[in-house]
Amino acid sequence: MGTLLDFPRFLLTSLVLVFFIFLTTPTIEAKIRRYNWEVKYKYMSPDCYQKLVIAVNGKSPGPTILAQAGDMIIVNLKNGLITENVAVHWHGIRQIGTPWSDGTEGVTQCPILPGDTFQYKFVVDRPGTYLYHAHYGMQREAGLYGSIRVSVRDGENEPFSYDEDRSIILNDWWHNSTLVQATGLSSIPFQWVNEPQSLLIQGRGIFNCSQLSPSSSDTGICNNTKCYPYHLTVVPGRTYRLRIASLTSLSALNFEIEGHNMTIVEADGYYVEPFVVKNLNIYSGETYSVLVKADQDPSRNYWAVTNVVSRPRKPPPGLAIFNYYPNHPRKSPSTPPPTGPQWDDTDYRINQSLKIKAHRDYIHKPPQTSDRTIILLNTQNTINGYTKWSLNNVSHIFPETPYLIAIKENLPHAFDQNPPPETYDYKNYDIYGKPNNTNATFGNGIYRLEFNSTVDIILQNANMMKEHSNDTHPWHLHGHDFWVLGYGKGKFDPANHTKFNLVDPIMKNTVPLHQYSWTAIRFIANNPGTWAFHCHIESHFYMGMSVVFAEGVDRVGKLPDSIMGCGETKGLRRP
Amino acid sequence: MGTLLDFPRFLLTSLVLVFFIFLTTPTIEAKIRRYNWEVKYKYMSPDCYQKLVIAVNGKSPGPTILAQAGDMIIVNLKNGLITENVAVHWHGIRQIGTPWSDGTEGVTQCPILPGDTFQYKFVVDRPGTYLYHAHYGMQREAGLYGSIRVSVRDGENEPFSYDEDRSIILNDWWHNSTLVQATGLSSIPFQWVNEPQSLLIQGRGIFNCSQLSPSSSDTGICNNTKCYPYHLTVVPGRTYRLRIASLTSLSALNFEIEGHNMTIVEADGYYVEPFVVKNLNIYSGETYSVLVKADQDPSRNYWAVTNVVSRPRKPPPGLAIFNYYPNHPRKSPSTPPPTGPQWDDTDYRINQSLKIKAHRDYIHKPPQTSDRTIILLNTQNTINGYTKWSLNNVSHIFPETPYLIAIKENLPHAFDQNPPPETYDYKNYDIYGKPNNTNATFGNGIYRLEFNSTVDIILQNANMMKEHSNDTHPWHLHGHDFWVLGYGKGKFDPANHTKFNLVDPIMKNTVPLHQYSWTAIRFIANNPGTWAFHCHIESHFYMGMSVVFAEGVDRVGKLPDSIMGCGETKGLRRP
Repeated sequence: MGTLLDFPRFLLTSLVLVFFIFLTTPTIEAKIRRYNWEVKYKYMSPDCYQKLVIAVNGKSPGPTILAQAGDMIIVNLKNGLITENVAVHWHGIRQIGTPWSDGTEGVTQCPILPGDTFQYKFVVDRPGTYLYHAHYGMQREAGLYGSIRVSVRDGENEPFSYDEDRSIILNDWWHNSTLVQATGLSSIPFQWVNEPQSLLIQGRGIFNCSQLSPSSSDTGICNNTKCYPYHLTVVPGRTYRLRIASLTSLSALNFEIEGHNMTIVEADGYYVEPFVVKNLNIYSGETYSVLVKADQDPSRNYWAVTNVVSRPRKPPPGLAIFNYYPNHPRKSPSTPPPTGPQWDDTDYRINQSLKIKAHRDYIHKPPQTSDRTIILLNTQNTINGYTKWSLNNVSHIFPETPYLIAIKENLPHAFDQNPPPETYDYKNYDIYGKPNNTNATFGNGIYRLEFNSTVDIILQNANMMKEHSNDTHPWHLHGHDFWVLGYGKGKFDPANHTKFNLVDPIMKNTVPLHQYSWTAIRFIANNPGTWAFHCHIESHFYMGMSVVFAEGVDRVGKLPDSIMGCGETKGLRRP
Repeated sequence: MGTLLDFPRFLLTSLVLVFFIFLTTPTIEAKIRRYNWEVKYKYMSPDCYQKLVIAVNGKSPGPTILAQAGDMIIVNLKNGLITENVAVHWHGIRQIGTPWSDGTEGVTQCPILPGDTFQYKFVVDRPGTYLYHAHYGMQREAGLYGSIRVSVRDGENEPFSYDEDRSIILNDWWHNSTLVQATGLSSIPFQWVNEPQSLLIQGRGIFNCSQLSPSSSDTGICNNTKCYPYHLTVVPGRTYRLRIASLTSLSALNFEIEGHNMTIVEADGYYVEPFVVKNLNIYSGETYSVLVKADQDPSRNYWAVTNVVSRPRKPPPGLAIFNYYPNHPRKSPSTPPPTGPQWDDTDYRINQSLKIKAHRDYIHKPPQTSDRTIILLNTQNTINGYTKWSLNNVSHIFPETPYLIAIKENLPHAFDQNPPPETYDYKNYDIYGKPNNTNATFGNGIYRLEFNSTVDIILQNANMMKEHSNDTHPWHLHGHDFWVLGYGKGKFDPANHTKFNLVDPIMKNTVPLHQYSWTAIRFIANNPGTWAFHCHIESHFYMGMSVVFAEGVDRVGKLPDSIMGCGETKGLRRP
């Protein structure tokens, strides 16, 4: 009931409220951002060809998470799949204090069962361009992925300016299912996944349906009249920050916008000393921000194109339309799309990698020495007749009990307590020859790192099981950013570190290992938890191309019950 | 160290051992039969078309379990799937004292996670013909199924004789994946699975590859030159016991052997008063033993053929060769395969159902009255836009915590404690009209049965959402055999029980509900546990066509930890 007496009370309340807001505004920085997501199979036609896609709230790519540095993200993830479990990784987010939210099945959690809702809760502590994607089996390839965009804290500035901010994820796409692929990879005889059918730009591609039998078009399985390439509309004169990410399952890519240069300004959340490129090489798991000015003839549209590099170009280029407003966004340019660099020009790619250095005003100086160096020889092996990827001849298999739980809850039988090899016979090994399979084994041992120690990892590429063949491997580290100390051709010589950049190395979470080359990184083991480090090619990871680091697990807080339920963690809820 | 003194000790030990064996031999009846199975995806071509199949130890159908009544079966089942869980049901085995081994995900156990090994341990207490198959999602349809054949105890006789014993499972087969099908069934708009591409006899069929685009044959996806129909070799003059089972996902079938009559002698493990048929109608989940004498012209082979009944015949007949030794087993008969009865001859099928009665010397007399009658109206409904199957307008959904654990461990929030409706408005309901969706809901409530009480279930068929359409539903009860009291056309009148057979009803675990008809069954709720009762059509079950009974759960022994891990049973192993 309102009375006249209420009025002053209302006024008082309002005044108190205003005063409170005034008082607290300067300290309000972190917001809580909540998302309710359901992961479900859906018939979709990303490249005009209909197949089952794992969608988030009906979308693939899923919803973009927009946040500010310091915000807390809460994602209540419901598994709406039928018989499949799931786990989602927040790629590039270090999960400081929340290692159980890293979403890496087998490392930080049990998989989320169908019907279950799992809460991921973590702080996005740094601004930058990040990703999320499934991290179980090969489910990422089935379409469960999306963008995380974290803006700077209030009052902070970035060392570049732009008018608009846009996210684009590049991907490669197959028409068969990930189950079909995974089964082939783990069969005798080995059945390779082969090259993708399409390249997708922000979840859209154009597969030419006429390549299929007429019945496929008749039955609506493939229909070129009902799908269109992605378009990015720009206003003439404006400058765009394009956050370009790759979540390919296999392909290394080059990205180019017809007639427009790009200035690289950010890589994996770190500011880059800006430099201009005609096109950008990008490897699965990497993110870049580039600045593009809409400064060309505004009477037409332009192609944005992505092409395969480092492997022969089987899929046609992925095309999007860089649309100058007010031209029609679906009007294809009459010019041919640019073809980018030669697919086999390794030098071109290594040179671009070497150019990416920390912005001069944002240098995070690395420790000048390391406490430990682990050298990882990247080879294929044949083990018990199965074709596998190995590090120092050990092909990683994940135990049933996730490492984080096994170590924290002292379940030593959950995995091999012996660490994998620290190095390989680098003096005698011929990286250009076929592996001879000496001592090649499966293993689930891990590297235990002294807390706060500085660790160098040398990734050494080497020939595969087939003569004269070598792949580019994008290596991704969970829970940390690392300094990229260097890249070099041929075999790394541990006696000669002169090629390390200890002055202005970029920090990243994903780095390419080029063909017949080495890559050196350094990081500080200062994040309590267990962390995967692996090749980001979906099939390579599935075939064993990973290692796991554990550090300071005794400092990890009480593990949530929600990550339990598998392996040795079965049973009724603890009292 | 061996000394001379050891010799007499050895002799003594041997003598004791021999004596022990002698003493115990007459009482050794039950054997323990152990199986180590791995469930894994495999590329297979059951009907010449290559697809992913869920195989057991590389086979589909999986290995046959051969046992004797009273034996204990131990199956260590390793889930070698990639991201999918699994659970295996032992169809027809009552699981007396071991309700946690029934293998029904959501009812008796949490699903088995990838990498996990689950031990099923149970006694096959009765002789007869049984089955096993996946009971999670629609995985049965993906090929995880097989036979269980239990012989009589030593010294017991069967009321018929034969020379050879053979098992045949009939099945229907689709070329798309169960995930594609399940997604369509749970989508808006609803997408039906459509009719199967093939009918399989003992896992083999012949799809005509020329119906596909040439590329499918080129790439080896479909190849008619590399697959053959199943053949059953018989020696002229001998009598064969054919154990015929159906594990179709959709189709009701008729089975016939060209030129040979069959004598039905067993149904679902119970002896039938023998009668001769030209062909056998068989519904998914049913098993029959028939006697066939190889008494025809031995200079040629004959067709064994299975055809769809109760639905229009889209798939071609499933063909096998009834091979008279020494004719070549792959030599096709020059005669056309028999076509069986008209697909829409419902009377023919009801009449055969009515003929199946208990063998006069093996009558298990049913209780003459029941303590409770539950009437279940079988309809489709549209709920929140989804097309579902319902009982009394409730479409069943399974809770995350299996009922057995929820009740035994007193977790009442795990599911709705209110039971579903006991009956429907049978006075006014028009079973020939479209359901009007009154009060149609999803539900996970169950029927709690008083321990040792006698329960009647009346299944009432009714029109689907489409005008003038009605399906045959094979209903399967877990944990019990029931008496088949009767079948009748039209609407069941609770006031008129005169059609019940209380004299010599057959006992079964699966029974057809014919089109626009009713089926009445009776059972005694004397098996402590929680038990699914459901339509055995894979898509109907997936769409909610099930109920659950609970009885005497307080009498169930300590639940094994291995069934935990989902829903409210997450967390570290109990101390």
